[in-house]
Amino acid sequence: MKIKYPKGQEPEGVSAPFKVHKPAIGKRLSAANRGMDFEADINQSCLYYEEKGVALITKRPTPINVVKVDYSHGAKITNAYFEKQSTTDYNGVYQGRYLDFEAKETKSKTSFPISNIAPQQVAHLEKVEKNGGFAFFLIHLSQTDETYLLKASYVCLFYREKPRKSIPFAEIRSEGYAVKEGYNPRFDFLAAFDEAFLK
Amino acid sequence: MKIKYPKGQEPEGVSAPFKVHKPAIGKRLSAANRGMDFEADINQSCLYYEEKGVALITKRPTPINVVKVDYSHGAKITNAYFEKQSTTDYNGVYQGRYLDFEAKETKSKTSFPISNIAPQQVAHLEKVEKNGGFAFFLIHLSQTDETYLLKASYVCLFYREKPRKSIPFAEIRSEGYAVKEGYNPRFDFLAAFDEAFLK
Repeated sequence: MKIKYPKGQEPEGVSAPFKVHKPAIGKRLSAANRGMDFEADINQSCLYYEEKGVALITKRPTPINVVKVDYSHGAKITNAYFEKQSTTDYNGVYQGRYLDFEAKETKSKTSFPISNIAPQQVAHLEKVEKNGGFAFFLIHLSQTDETYLLKASYVCLFYREKPRKSIPFAEIRSEGYAVKEGYNPRFDFLAAFDEAFLK
Repeated sequence: MKIKYPKGQEPEGVSAPFKVHKPAIGKRLSAANRGMDFEADINQSCLYYEEKGVALITKRPTPINVVKVDYSHGAKITNAYFEKQSTTDYNGVYQGRYLDFEAKETKSKTSFPISNIAPQQVAHLEKVEKNGGFAFFLIHLSQTDETYLLKASYVCLFYREKPRKSIPFAEIRSEGYAVKEGYNPRFDFLAAFDEAFLK
């Protein structure tokens, strides 16, 4: 998880504290490396949607428990701890609809371990749906460089009933909606969203 | 702004890292003290809505720029700085609608200084509206213990055209929608929302 957003990388007037992804030439074509940058690529895609006026999706900052602040030279935090995100990483609005999702990647070659998903994220996404929002996961299979949108309703049911400890890729491919990869946006996940929820 | 969310205060299964407000008996009735707890009261109100299944509104964590982490005993952050929220503090879903708002308070006796609002918050709320979401401010006048919902469209126009450097309370009272204060929720701002946007 990216924590630090270097100053000067956020375009002016853009809401989200997104780190703009700068692909390292050459490296980007390796499937193994691709997965490492999945979150950065989702951030870039959100930024693209925001700039084009397509949607406004922001990444929640990582919550940090601040224990001590030194005010002798401005406010410098000298003791703090990362806390687990109690919701999901992303939410926003797309044509009036409330979207809420989590982006996950796996290096596995066969299946997505549901231990990757925190119980409070499942609870949160179920509440999103109950309140009329749209909840989903974006899952990136880094070995084969495939990305799928999976409805939260499907993933949460799998999580609760636990027929297995991981979701086989074959099932992700049949239940999910393929997310097209490109240059800009890096992942056109709203096209997959349309396919999954609006058709 | 509250930064630290003490462990054990978040009820299980509740998404937002809200600090549950525990009113100090006696103190709570003083108008001067009331304003100090406005954010905590809004958090309590969101929690109430979440538990009742009325809406799911979460507070974005304060973004922190982490400079140095000491991994010798777990991950202890030893150097970090608070960053300005580049969006608003709250967003969520209410009966399928995307809500996005900022909660502000003023100790002024006459008017709300628009210098309290950051330019990126205005830009963000304008984008919310363009994408079909509902954007507003909750403004608490701590001297008189009044709270109003003001549509972002109104506040942003005031911000951009700057007829004055502050919004007179008389105008807030006529343009805004009064938010009823009670025990639970502390501020029933969704009733004011219905009034403002749905009638």
